[in-house]
Amino acid sequence: MESGAPFNAESDETRSQMLRATYDALQVHGYAELTIQRIADEFPKSKSLIYQHYGGKDELLVDFLELLLEQFETVFEEDRSHDAPARLERLLDHMLSPGPEGESFVRAMTALRGEAPYNDAFRARFTETDRVIRGQVESIVRQGIDDGVFNPVDETRVATFVVTTLQGAGFHRSTTDDGFDEDALRRELEDYLESRLGPDAVR
Amino acid sequence: MESGAPFNAESDETRSQMLRATYDALQVHGYAELTIQRIADEFPKSKSLIYQHYGGKDELLVDFLELLLEQFETVFEEDRSHDAPARLERLLDHMLSPGPEGESFVRAMTALRGEAPYNDAFRARFTETDRVIRGQVESIVRQGIDDGVFNPVDETRVATFVVTTLQGAGFHRSTTDDGFDEDALRRELEDYLESRLGPDAVR
Repeated sequence: MESGAPFNAESDETRSQMLRATYDALQVHGYAELTIQRIADEFPKSKSLIYQHYGGKDELLVDFLELLLEQFETVFEEDRSHDAPARLERLLDHMLSPGPEGESFVRAMTALRGEAPYNDAFRARFTETDRVIRGQVESIVRQGIDDGVFNPVDETRVATFVVTTLQGAGFHRSTTDDGFDEDALRRELEDYLESRLGPDAVR
Repeated sequence: MESGAPFNAESDETRSQMLRATYDALQVHGYAELTIQRIADEFPKSKSLIYQHYGGKDELLVDFLELLLEQFETVFEEDRSHDAPARLERLLDHMLSPGPEGESFVRAMTALRGEAPYNDAFRARFTETDRVIRGQVESIVRQGIDDGVFNPVDETRVATFVVTTLQGAGFHRSTTDDGFDEDALRRELEDYLESRLGPDAVR
């Protein structure tokens, strides 16, 4: 969902430590100023170990994006225990008010997205990420329709619209200082969801 | 509006040529791989002339963003000769289907936005850019209300929502390969505008 902290549980400890170091360095320096040396500075083991596993910073970042994708899918799976309005509210909280750690994550993602127009491997991962996020929103809408809580709508259209707006909000927040009126955006999005899905769209 | 081509008319020829070269090099290389040498390769005069005016690539890029801002304001001024539904339709065309040159511009803007979380000067310019774009949409909505074509609504809320969605669409398009269903997004956005502003919201 591009606004939670990664690295909750990870089996391959060295890979995990290298990707954690990559993420830590990315949060501080952004993409353009990121170097293997700066990643190594965050890594508790030797720099040569990084070179044994990865050809350069882009390979580390692509593997980092793979790890995120695996974790998104796990988070989304767990989420199915709640009803559709509660899931929708959690999604809005997560994407619009992610807290300091989440905002730092959004900034790091914006930095990598900024390179994506010029980097095929990054773009391929973000294509997949967006497909997973959109699929998650589609599944929420479908669940709400199946449970009789939401109006019958074209779930792909609604999901595309909602995800585009939520990502636009993160993009704006991470690249400007004023952060406009986030409450106004949320109220307008909730009004849209109620008019589209029904009065109980959001818990 | 972040999807038109700059450099329509420019008085200071050398500044214009340097910023044109900056933009040309940015479109090819993105931000991280952009260098003064690559800008100089696109510049018809000598590289030393660039150094006489600018301390480095970031100074060129900040001046480039300033130029864009000036041009946005001019474009928006001219636009006031049309009625509100026509202006809204032009905005949607411009942001959702900008054509090849416009898409290249959106990619270049995404590249610079990617650096914005880590660069105060870039972030200050994008803050201003977004304020101008939001102001433009507010003025369209206000005009529609004044003319009795749109329902009375909170124009800031609607403008914030519309601009966030439109920017999210450009962000997605420029950083992924699938480009989802743009028509679905546009139809959903038009449905939202009609439910909010009235049946004649978009020409």
